Amino acid sequence: METSAQQTIAIPKGFRASGVKCGIKASGNLDLALIVSDYPCFAAGTFTLNRVAAAPVQWDRALVPAREMRGVVVNAGNANAATGHQGLINAAKMAELAAGVVGCESRQMLVASTGVIGHQLPMEKIKAGIIAAHAVLTSDPSGFDAASHAIMTTDTVAKVVGATMTASTGEVVRIMGLCKGAAMIGPRMATMLGFVVTDARLPESILQEQLSAIVDDTFNCISVEGHASTNDTVLLLANGQANATALEGEDIALFQGALREVCESLAKMIPGDGEGATHRITIDVRGCKDRKEAMAIARAVADSALVKTAIHGADPNWGRIVSAAGYAGVEFQESEMSLWLNGFPLYQQGTPLAFDAAEVSSNIRESRETHILLQFDRGQSRIRFWTCDLTAEYIHLNADYTT
Amino acid sequence: METSAQQTIAIPKGFRASGVKCGIKASGNLDLALIVSDYPCFAAGTFTLNRVAAAPVQWDRALVPAREMRGVVVNAGNANAATGHQGLINAAKMAELAAGVVGCESRQMLVASTGVIGHQLPMEKIKAGIIAAHAVLTSDPSGFDAASHAIMTTDTVAKVVGATMTASTGEVVRIMGLCKGAAMIGPRMATMLGFVVTDARLPESILQEQLSAIVDDTFNCISVEGHASTNDTVLLLANGQANATALEGEDIALFQGALREVCESLAKMIPGDGEGATHRITIDVRGCKDRKEAMAIARAVADSALVKTAIHGADPNWGRIVSAAGYAGVEFQESEMSLWLNGFPLYQQGTPLAFDAAEVSSNIRESRETHILLQFDRGQSRIRFWTCDLTAEYIHLNADYTT
Repeated sequence: METSAQQTIAIPKGFRASGVKCGIKASGNLDLALIVSDYPCFAAGTFTLNRVAAAPVQWDRALVPAREMRGVVVNAGNANAATGHQGLINAAKMAELAAGVVGCESRQMLVASTGVIGHQLPMEKIKAGIIAAHAVLTSDPSGFDAASHAIMTTDTVAKVVGATMTASTGEVVRIMGLCKGAAMIGPRMATMLGFVVTDARLPESILQEQLSAIVDDTFNCISVEGHASTNDTVLLLANGQANATALEGEDIALFQGALREVCESLAKMIPGDGEGATHRITIDVRGCKDRKEAMAIARAVADSALVKTAIHGADPNWGRIVSAAGYAGVEFQESEMSLWLNGFPLYQQGTPLAFDAAEVSSNIRESRETHILLQFDRGQSRIRFWTCDLTAEYIHLNADYTT
Repeated sequence: METSAQQTIAIPKGFRASGVKCGIKASGNLDLALIVSDYPCFAAGTFTLNRVAAAPVQWDRALVPAREMRGVVVNAGNANAATGHQGLINAAKMAELAAGVVGCESRQMLVASTGVIGHQLPMEKIKAGIIAAHAVLTSDPSGFDAASHAIMTTDTVAKVVGATMTASTGEVVRIMGLCKGAAMIGPRMATMLGFVVTDARLPESILQEQLSAIVDDTFNCISVEGHASTNDTVLLLANGQANATALEGEDIALFQGALREVCESLAKMIPGDGEGATHRITIDVRGCKDRKEAMAIARAVADSALVKTAIHGADPNWGRIVSAAGYAGVEFQESEMSLWLNGFPLYQQGTPLAFDAAEVSSNIRESRETHILLQFDRGQSRIRFWTCDLTAEYIHLNADYTT
């Protein structure tokens, strides 16, 4: 799998992209992205379950899954969320403007927004941005690179991943994904903005099903501070230009594996770039009765400020981890739980183990990657979850530098 | 109501207390408290629902509600939590040692611990501390003042509240409570350590019922970072020395009101003294279908790092508040929600209102108290919840200064 858009990712056939500056971000950086397929696509999507769903989420949710889609227009710097009826009018207008330049109907364009909540979109800037973005659309990787930068807010790195698979017919299928997100990350059944495009041709019914299942294991298994956004959206566009007839049999499983690889790589990049983070924390919860139990425990540990600050301080204060598991709402017995931190066994079936605190502490300090393994004796279900530590820099970014 | 133990709180008849240094806290501060009734008490209690319940919680939970109780022994600096079978032996031994000096049976003594998780209690220090504490037991307010300091961990102020009521017989009943807590505060059905003593005589069946109901509205409606502790415990001891026959009729309601006043005042002190906090935040959620809805929304807003950092930065970034409400799991419509921040209307029935951001910001900055009112159009249920802001000092306290 390749992870740099600019140089090495194979762009799926028939897709073009661009990113331009239209003046929404105060910084003057790229803030409007356009991704277009020259051929009608099948589109699948997953969206935030937040009751305060942004206007663009409401637009997309009403459309997908759908055939005949042509692309997506995205702005950063303004979330178009909690904006009432005017927000819905603006999201529809944004789709209409993009459809106008692309040459299709409004209902063939998807829309996404990210940024501050509660402000109306500056529609004149959006309009000028869409015209400018259309003028520089390109199938060259540089267009996708610009798009991946234009969707960033407080992200410090652009997040782009690609994968290819060779079908049993010998046809090569390309998958490429981009996403953004560094805070307000606590997806429930969806995530921050993620866009995956592919030139694969598959039975349509399978795409939404595959995307939903994969998002559950990837974008739904990350958090920064656990605050579920109003704008979480993952869209998959498939235009079928790579292969003449739809994939079938083992090729479908092969495609699903490649799609999962792209989504997991993108998802992990978000806590890896969490606001102010100094550690990415991978949490493995194993031996649970079912996935729901494992997820509840992983999320409780991931979202505990005390666990996050302990890792930041390289403090092997494992009591914070087991106590977070304890309030996850899962009725386990302490004797069913064991804990490893970066491979060091600290707690076994309800009893603390002797360990060298200085050794574990320097082990945490020396790497950006931290690994927590909570093993239960309750069943066979497991989950992997990714989060990051909580630092004073996160506080400064969110207390001192906003509005 | 009076709020300073040393000078003005009336000590309930027949109770004595003390606090001593036994060497558990590295700081050398007071760390062992003893509260004793010279007469058998009726005891009620509420405890953490964390599955990793500390050994002292398991000891107490097995005993209360109960008659014939004589008191409680408490240590700070070590939580005796996640300590396996040896932890249970040590909690029982702590009760036995206290019973020995008081002159009663082990099952007449309650036990509480707070501090670091996962270390065995230093029993020799506990034993010496109990003997020393017994030697200085006093019914003078100074004894309760020492006890209130001995149960502190990172608390910066001791938390003591008293109330009196006059029964229709003319008899005066005294209630006095003390508590501790500054972090790992996210009680579910219980709270951090809280001890309430009264000389009231009531029908026994009523005490546990009253305490449970009141704790639900007070200690269960606070958070610092939302991490539910392994040691949360509230105990109520009533020795009946104030009044000859049990309270009845309106006197019971009067007592309940006084008990509620004590518990609410104590509970509010905890987020008011939250680690590193610069604002106490009172969250009123009104107009919900039921209490569960209101509680879920209040807790989601209270535990959002983005809401807490916005208040710390005096940033009227109200989108963070409504979006936190949106992921609380309550299926409201945006058009049912309105928001006031420190009395300023910011969002009305799903639509943002124009407001002077600089004015609201300086209003937040100028006071330690912040008020959030979320009004829904769904029903008549309401809740009040207290939390605090999240600051870089909280991060430093939990990342850099522990273990």
